Order: sequence, then C-alpha cells, then structure tokens
Amino acid sequence: MPTDMLDRIESPADLKKLDRCQLSALADELRAFVLESVSRTGGHLSSNLGTVELTLALHYVFDTPDDRIVWDVGHQTYPHKILTGRRAGMATLRQQGGISGFPRRSESDYDAFGTAHSSTSISAALGMAAAARYAGIDRRHIAVIGDGAMSAGMAFEALNNGGVMPDVDLLVILNDNDMSISPPVGALNRYLARLMSGKFYAAARNVGKAVLSHVPPVFELARRIEEHAKGMVTPATMFEELGFNYVGPIDGHDLDSLIPTLQNMRKLSGPRFLHVVTRKGQGYKLAEADPVLYHGPGKFDPAVGISKPSTPPRKTFTQVFGDWLCDMAAEDTRLIGITPAMREGSGLVEFERRFPERYFDVGIAEQHAVTFAGGLACEGLKPVVAIYSTFLQRGYDQLIHDVALQDLDVTFALDRAGLVGADGATHAGNYDIAFVRCIPNMVVATPSDEAECRLLLSTCYRHPGPATVRYPRGAGRGAAPAANLDTVPLGKGVVRRESGRAQSGGQAGVAILAFGTLAVPALQAGLALDATVADMRFVKPIDRELILDLAARHAALVTVEEGSIMGGAGSAVCEVLNEAGVTVPVMQLGLPDRFIDHGDQAALLAGLGLDAAGIEASVRGRFPDQVS
Amino acid sequence: MPTDMLDRIESPADLKKLDRCQLSALADELRAFVLESVSRTGGHLSSNLGTVELTLALHYVFDTPDDRIVWDVGHQTYPHKILTGRRAGMATLRQQGGISGFPRRSESDYDAFGTAHSSTSISAALGMAAAARYAGIDRRHIAVIGDGAMSAGMAFEALNNGGVMPDVDLLVILNDNDMSISPPVGALNRYLARLMSGKFYAAARNVGKAVLSHVPPVFELARRIEEHAKGMVTPATMFEELGFNYVGPIDGHDLDSLIPTLQNMRKLSGPRFLHVVTRKGQGYKLAEADPVLYHGPGKFDPAVGISKPSTPPRKTFTQVFGDWLCDMAAEDTRLIGITPAMREGSGLVEFERRFPERYFDVGIAEQHAVTFAGGLACEGLKPVVAIYSTFLQRGYDQLIHDVALQDLDVTFALDRAGLVGADGATHAGNYDIAFVRCIPNMVVATPSDEAECRLLLSTCYRHPGPATVRYPRGAGRGAAPAANLDTVPLGKGVVRRESGRAQSGGQAGVAILAFGTLAVPALQAGLALDATVADMRFVKPIDRELILDLAARHAALVTVEEGSIMGGAGSAVCEVLNEAGVTVPVMQLGLPDRFIDHGDQAALLAGLGLDAAGIEASVRGRFPDQVS
Repeated sequence: MPTDMLDRIESPADLKKLDRCQLSALADELRAFVLESVSRTGGHLSSNLGTVELTLALHYVFDTPDDRIVWDVGHQTYPHKILTGRRAGMATLRQQGGISGFPRRSESDYDAFGTAHSSTSISAALGMAAAARYAGIDRRHIAVIGDGAMSAGMAFEALNNGGVMPDVDLLVILNDNDMSISPPVGALNRYLARLMSGKFYAAARNVGKAVLSHVPPVFELARRIEEHAKGMVTPATMFEELGFNYVGPIDGHDLDSLIPTLQNMRKLSGPRFLHVVTRKGQGYKLAEADPVLYHGPGKFDPAVGISKPSTPPRKTFTQVFGDWLCDMAAEDTRLIGITPAMREGSGLVEFERRFPERYFDVGIAEQHAVTFAGGLACEGLKPVVAIYSTFLQRGYDQLIHDVALQDLDVTFALDRAGLVGADGATHAGNYDIAFVRCIPNMVVATPSDEAECRLLLSTCYRHPGPATVRYPRGAGRGAAPAANLDTVPLGKGVVRRESGRAQSGGQAGVAILAFGTLAVPALQAGLALDATVADMRFVKPIDRELILDLAARHAALVTVEEGSIMGGAGSAVCEVLNEAGVTVPVMQLGLPDRFIDHGDQAALLAGLGLDAAGIEASVRGRFPDQVS
Repeated sequence: MPTDMLDRIESPADLKKLDRCQLSALADELRAFVLESVSRTGGHLSSNLGTVELTLALHYVFDTPDDRIVWDVGHQTYPHKILTGRRAGMATLRQQGGISGFPRRSESDYDAFGTAHSSTSISAALGMAAAARYAGIDRRHIAVIGDGAMSAGMAFEALNNGGVMPDVDLLVILNDNDMSISPPVGALNRYLARLMSGKFYAAARNVGKAVLSHVPPVFELARRIEEHAKGMVTPATMFEELGFNYVGPIDGHDLDSLIPTLQNMRKLSGPRFLHVVTRKGQGYKLAEADPVLYHGPGKFDPAVGISKPSTPPRKTFTQVFGDWLCDMAAEDTRLIGITPAMREGSGLVEFERRFPERYFDVGIAEQHAVTFAGGLACEGLKPVVAIYSTFLQRGYDQLIHDVALQDLDVTFALDRAGLVGADGATHAGNYDIAFVRCIPNMVVATPSDEAECRLLLSTCYRHPGPATVRYPRGAGRGAAPAANLDTVPLGKGVVRRESGRAQSGGQAGVAILAFGTLAVPALQAGLALDATVADMRFVKPIDRELILDLAARHAALVTVEEGSIMGGAGSAVCEVLNEAGVTVPVMQLGLPDRFIDHGDQAALLAGLGLDAAGIEASVRGRFPDQVS
C-alpha cells in the first residue's frame, strides 16, 4: 500500500496542515505502515493497530510537544513514534542501538514520560499538570491509559488525588479495548462493559459531540438533578464521583467522533475523563480475531499471518515452569496458581485449563497478588505466584510485610530475571537478588538450566516458607527436566567441576561460584581455565560450608550472576567470608551499575563480558597465575 | 472507673454470655480501660477509642476465631486484644517482650493476619475467603478498613478482584472516621463525605436495619430501577458498581445499629460492604477535640491530658528535616514538598503552613507519590518526597522505573531508617540501603548526626538527580545544624579520627567505616580501640578513594551501619575492594538477618552489639592484635 501522505509527515506540524477529510486516508496509511513495519521487526502489534486514530486525533488537536501526552504502558506508541519524526527509525525498533519499543524522554521531546510498566501515566501527567499550575503555564496534559492498566491501584491513587485538584489541566483518556495482555478480569472491567453496553452506549455514544461544560461545585445539586432527569441513560459514573468530568463512551476509531470531542474537551479545565472504545488489532483481520497471538509477535508475513513453527523450538523456562505447575498441582491439591494479568507470559494457560478452580488472575495488581497469596497461605493452601522479576518490584512491601514477616508459605516464580532483550531497561529483572535476599525468612533459588529449574521449583515449593525461584527469559542450555517432582537439599550448591590445581592439594587455582544460568558459560570458562566451578543453586540460604571449603582450597574465588553486582549474590559470598573471618581474593562478575538498553539478550551479555569468553578473559586478567 | 464486667471477659465466648442490653455498659468499661491503659504505656489512643463498639459488636455477632477478622493498619486493635485474652498484657504493650501494638498471628489465634502497614486487609481476607470456598468451609471473613487506608491503590485492587467473586464470603467494613494520621485528602474521602452528609445520611442511616438481599445479576435492571425510584437518596454507590452489596452508612458507636446490621449481613453471601461512621477519640473529650495529638501519645495523665514539656526535648531528625525543608523552600522556589499522608510524622506541618501552594499530601498512596514527584521533576521543579523508609517499599517499582531510570531530580527524605522501637518489625527501616543502592543513578546518603543530616539534605537536593537521605527515628547526638544551606562533596566521606597505629606508618590497626548515626558509638569505640574512624556519609556513590586508602593503611576494616548486613553498606565496601583487587580482612557490623521485635530503640541496638561497647567488643574479639 502506498504511503504518499504519511511520507510527508515529519512532525505533528505537518499533520495539522492536512484537511480534516484527509485524516481518514492517512489513518489507513499509518495502519498499513505499522503492520508492515512490525511484521519486519517484531514488536507489539495489536495495541498499536488499535491506537491509530486516537494518536492521529491527539496530535491533530493538541499542540505537542508543548502539550504533554503520557502513554500508559507505552507499547502502543508506534503510531505516535511514526508521526513524531521516527518513521525511519521503526526499522531498528527494539534492536540494539535502535529506537525503543516504549516512549523515552531521551529519544524525543514528544515522549513526555518514559513508560513501560503499567498504570503510571495519570500520576506522571498529574505531576506535570501541577507543575504547570504552579508556574502559571497554559498547557494541556493527557494521560492515555488502557482498561487493563486501570485495574492497578496506582491508577486509582492518581485519580483519587487528581479529583481534588479542580484547577489542574488534566485529561485522562481511557482507551477501553477490553483486553490487556491477559483478558481483563476485575469488577472495574465489568463496570466499563456496562457503561459500553446496551442502552447506555446506544444513548450515550454521541454525548461527546455535545460536551457539557465542567460543573462548578456550587452547581453540584443541579448536576445531580440533571443526572436524574437523564434517568437510566447517564447516571453519575464512578469517575464523576471521583471528581472528573466524564465524557463517553465514544468510538475510538471514528475520527468524526474523536476530533470534535477532543477539541471540545481541550477547552475545558480541571480533571476530565474521556472514555474511548477501541479494538485491539483493528483493521488487520487476523489480529482482530486473535489479539493475544498478535500482541507481541516476532517477524511474520502479513499476508499469511503468524505461522506455527514446523519444528518446536527449545522449551523456554516459562514453559518448564508451566509444566511443573500442572504436575505439582496434580499431585498436591493445596497448590493455587496466581498471576497478575500475565497468563500467557507466565505460562499459566494450561494450568488454567486444567485447574480453573485453582487459578486466579487478579488483574494488573501485583500488590494485591502478593497479599492475596498470603491470605491463602494462612489457611493452609500453597500459593504459587507467577510474576516477572521486574513486576515483583510492585509488590515489594507486601513481600516483606505480609509474606516474609509472617513466614507464610508462598512460592514466587520469578520469570524474566536478568536482562530481557528487546523490552530493555524498563523490564530488566536485574535487582531481585539484591532486593529479596535482604529480607529475613526468604529463600532465593537460582536454577542454572531447565532441569535445575524444575528441581528448585519443587524444592522451594516443598519448603514450608516463602521462597523465590528466579529464571531468565527464553530457553536455557536445553537440559530436559525430569518427569518427577524430586527436590534437592535446601541451601546447598554442587561442585560441577574440580580444578586439577585444587585437587593436587594445597591452596591453588580459582573457584568459580555461579548463581543461575550463567553457570553454563562459567563451566565452559572453567574448563578452559582449569578452574573449579560450583553451581551454587541458592543465594539464600547460601551454602556457607561450600563457600568456606572452596575458599580454603583455592587461591581466589570468582562469583558469577545475571543480576546487579551491587548487593547481589557475589556480595552474599563475601558476607559469608567476612562473617567467618576468612580473607581471600574475590572477583564479582555480574551486571554493572547502569541501566542497560534493549538489544539481543546474548549479544548484550557478551558485551558485558558475561559469556564464556568474557568470563574466561576476566578471570585470566585478574588471576593470571592461578589459571591454565 | 470499675471494670467489673470487663474483668470477667477472658474471650469472646464470655462476651456472648452477656445480655445485649449489658453491652453498652461494657463498652463504657472497655473505653475506660483503653484510656487508662494507654495513658500508662503510651500507644495509639484516638483510633482505639473509636473502635470500641465496633469491636464489641463484631466479637458478639461473629464466631471468632473461626470467623476471620482482619484489622487494617492494626493500630486500632487494643479493644480486640483486651476482649481476646490479652487484657493483662496491655500493661506490657509495645515493650520489649510484651505484646505488640499490632495484630500478630504468633500472638493469638484471634489475630487472623498481621497488619501494620495500611490497606492490606481486603487482599488478605479475600485470600482467606477464597481458601474457604475452595475447601468448602462455611466461615465468615471480615476486613475492617479505615477511610484513609481506602485511598491506597492496594485496597482498590482487592475490591476490584473481590467484586468478581460472587461466591466468596467477604464482608468489608469501612470504618469511616474521616481521619487517617493526616487529614484525608482524596476524592474518595469527599465522596464518602457526600454519602454521609445531608439528605443522604439522614435518609440512609437506618437502611442497615432492613438489609436488602444480594441481588443476582439477572435482576440488575430491577435494581437500577429501584435505585432510581429511590431518587436522590441512594444512587448506586461506587462499591455497588464494583460488585459489592453496599449497606450504610450507620453509626459505629450505636450498638443498636451495629449489632442487628452485622447479624443481618452475616447471613448474606458474596462480597458485601458495610459503611460505618465512627469518631476518633470517641468518649474522651480531649482526644475528640484533637485526635491528631492523641493519635499516638506517650504516657500522660488522663485527667489532665497531654501536657507540653516544660523544657523542649532535643530536636528529632524529623524536626531537623522539617526546618531544612522550610529554609530550602524559602531559598528555592522550585522546591515542592510531598507526603503520602504523613504530615505530622514526617515534619511537614510548618512547611504546609508557610508554603501551602507547594505542599502535596497525596493520601496513603506511596506509589502515586513517587511517580507524581517524577512528573513534577520532568517540568523542572525539585520535589522532595518525605517518606518513612518502610513505606518507600510501597513505591519501590516507581523509584526504579519512573524516577531512577529517567534520572529525574527527586530527593527522598527517608525517615525512620533502621530500628523504630515500639512499632517493631513491621515498621523497621532496615532494608533501604540494600534495596536502593542496587538501583543505578541513585544517591544514598547516611548522615551521622543532626548537623550532618542538614548538610546531606542540602547536598542531595542540589545534586541534579535522584537521591535518598536516610535518618532514624528520634534524636541524634544533639549536634546543632548550621543555619546555612551548605553542601559537602558528593560521594566523599571524612576521617573523624586517625589511629595512632596507622599514623606511625605501615599497615597497622583497624579502620572503622561508619554509615549513619552509628558513627557516634563507632567513634567512641574507635577511641577505646585506637582505631581510625571514618564517617562515610554516602553509601552511593561510595568513597572509593577513601576505602582504598584506609585499606592500604590498615590491617583490617570494620563497617558499621544500622541496616541489614545482607546487601548493605558493608557489602558496598567489599564490592569496591573486590573491584580494585584489594584483599583485606573485613568485619561487617549491622542488623542481622531476622525480624526484630518491638522494644526500646537504644536497648535493642545494645542487644545487637551496636552500641559503643558492643562495637568495641566485636572489634576486639575479631582483631585482638590490631587494637589497643
């Protein structure tokens, strides 16, 4: 499809030169470009096809970048990037050195706030609006948030705060597509569905064209009377109760609804709320039919769609976890599976199918997920919370205060630990070792491959207290997990390779203490160096005996982990040595103290010296006399 | 006042033997006992005076401990403790070895869930309710939550999830007293106030006596018609929209309203919501008049009330911060002060008075507080977030994802870092060094006394990036802060004392590297030991040069901090040594890997060997040949 008009849009200023009647054709070009582009690079698709018209309308009506648009979650911003000077950059999307899959302040003035985790947009936009009010700047602030993201408490906190600031300029646009990554599950979604459905929607859909002006508090009674005069059609919405001027729902693919409504709402002041209904995958039949499949595809042929791979790829850790969960659930009726809106990503699809009565998708609500699990554990059940490392950050206080402090038996399966590749720094699971191991009562397990992952999941599950098992995105070395549910001793590592130097007696050679999947390249490096290599398995409880034994038998220790060096597993080793009064040279290898951008996982690790060659080079560089 | 009836209540079973008409007199005895008891021990008062009748009614109507009551925040549970066998224990409240000021599972079967941080109760009770449903157990689950706690997103997440479980037995009781620790500030509070006020309340207050049965979805239309027939009086509440059967508001001090309403609601099924209106300080005129003053008093004479101390006590770190904030705000108009509902506790009373347009109490909403600050910082303002260390755990993801990743200029004043005394493990600020320092871009400052606190606040504020300054509860050694806003070099420590051994040349003696207020006892210990003592000032960036210099000139290093040893500042020192390839004996002193119960702060620290004598003894024990 030709993109003649789109090719001339270098910034929203060019967009504003167009006649309104041209915008519909431009939307078609933009949609085609998004589809073509994502099919070449991979990336998020369904959500971006759903925001084409909304993005066009926003940049047409508002004066960006002076007016601030904050896109919640941010993976729906490809149309926004294309319209704001990054059309060519789309070819490098999510690749090392290329543009990010999310808005980034450092990438464009049009990216008012970096987003990627859900439900931050209203808080950020409210902060900007409060700043404008304080400085006396006349400017608009728009938060665009999906219905899934609205279920997170943080969004509610921001609405609750914004509703009492009648003099800030804040427009919250609810992009209601009834589908976050997993299907939305909460009472709020049902409420929105009621707003959209039946008489409600039929009678209310055009209300946006005749926006009522914001009602000052003194006319509150008048408003209430007016509401009741409207009767069944438009009762006060929850958003009005929270102090927002609610308009909607309107059709988010109809520019003739969107543009005049936004133009009207632009003129209003105070906190206002526009409810827009869109469809994920809009305009691409395959994505409309299966928006989950087309949520974040790899490369594909748009004419054919995503094809099933002929040879099944190596099992990911996520799949290893999903298999284990079903097997353990079959054996132990006390097992309960919990996900905060990540059924697919966390590998719970089969579990839900087989054990629906034990499956809880609590919505994008990590705080609640953790404490809800705590409540279940109080009653003798054994909840397993499947959560990405980066999202456990959202439930950190609950992990400490509700689970660990009460020593409750909850197992956390931490997916996407370490670098995550194309999603970049926002989603990196680099900190969990540091932030979990400082909590008393916690167990922290770091499986080195798929077989170990299953073993450590079973071990942590059987442990009658709180535990985390962390594993990375993607596949490991391909070690087939056993079919059984065997366990290993808690807090004990295993020596995978003995250095000939150490065996020959006396203190000699290097011992590499590996935590997690970097044990695989560490073992390769160990072979080349004739170093002892231990798979430590647990960061906490850590194998004190093994550490002291290795320290006694080697001239130096090297720790390896795919996590922040600061506060990480290597430091746990040093704490053991210091506590025991043992002094031995230690080198800590792991992730450096900086945010690491998107790119290929393996290439990023190699760039950080965390592949076999890099580990070998580091050890050789530091301890040249202790290696072969 | 005699407590004849109360003296015979050893458990709720005794309560149930009473005639209903006796309960009012028992309430009077209970209230008098609470007042008398708290006036002797100190503790929370206003909130407990407010929950006397509600507690009586709950234990009278429900079959505790089989039925589960989860008390949100938990500091209003003294009447509950007194009625459940802990009347005598009240004399040891919040004292070392005595009963906790919060519910604790380990303390009583009647304490269904440990609470202390806000807004966890609905999640926990929902987890218990889901467990009962799964096991087929007939049991009630009650979450009692204040209106302040309802503003936290976590409560909303739980409501949103609970609203779609029509077959769980969950009763949420909103204890609406229109006052959290700071006055409530959000749109939800205004909404609740509307529900309570005027015609609403007048017409609705008795509705609890004639509870409508839960309406199945098929009668949704009928319900709506009924609502509208009722017209202005009872529109569907927000809680009904979220799937709860809403009843209220009712008078929470009127047992004749409470008991029949609870008896009726007990028989219902599904998620239900009872809106109870109470008054903090109820029944004690002085507390009614000033519930904030009587929120958490020390010992006082109930007949006289809290008297102002004749000689002003030493300034607390909180006051040092409050003074600094006002002084800096007077100089820099970009400064914005933010508190998540802790105006008094965080020392912002004067700031709000002087700079109301720059003061934001965002409610109990730590997640929002952090990202809201991020939004302000994007626009060139300089927000200072005043937050307890333990509550920053609630905004951890926002600290990483919204502030640090974007390198935004937000200063966090972390009060109550380290042990907090009477509040105990739930409120301990033991983990912030570990969980903050692993985040790239962050600055972590640890002032050693009041004067240093002001210096480091100014330094971190001037630093154009994210920073935390952590300081403990209470007063320091009494070092008067300067009146100016001077700064110190970022990431540089200072040597407070040189060992004679080191000065005499060669590697000898011990160097103590202190982080934070334990620098004071460390210096005393250093004098006794003839050790070098450095006040490191910053955990991050850490003073690499100083560490390597001290390592080169001493036989051993000792690190001291009031924070978790695991992942703490001592480990940061080791990371520097390891990175530089320096091997030197290190001893790490700090908080051990276990939760530490309530008690006197100084006594607790001494018990952990973290006073001057303890530090001296530890160093002497480990390095006998390197000290005097």
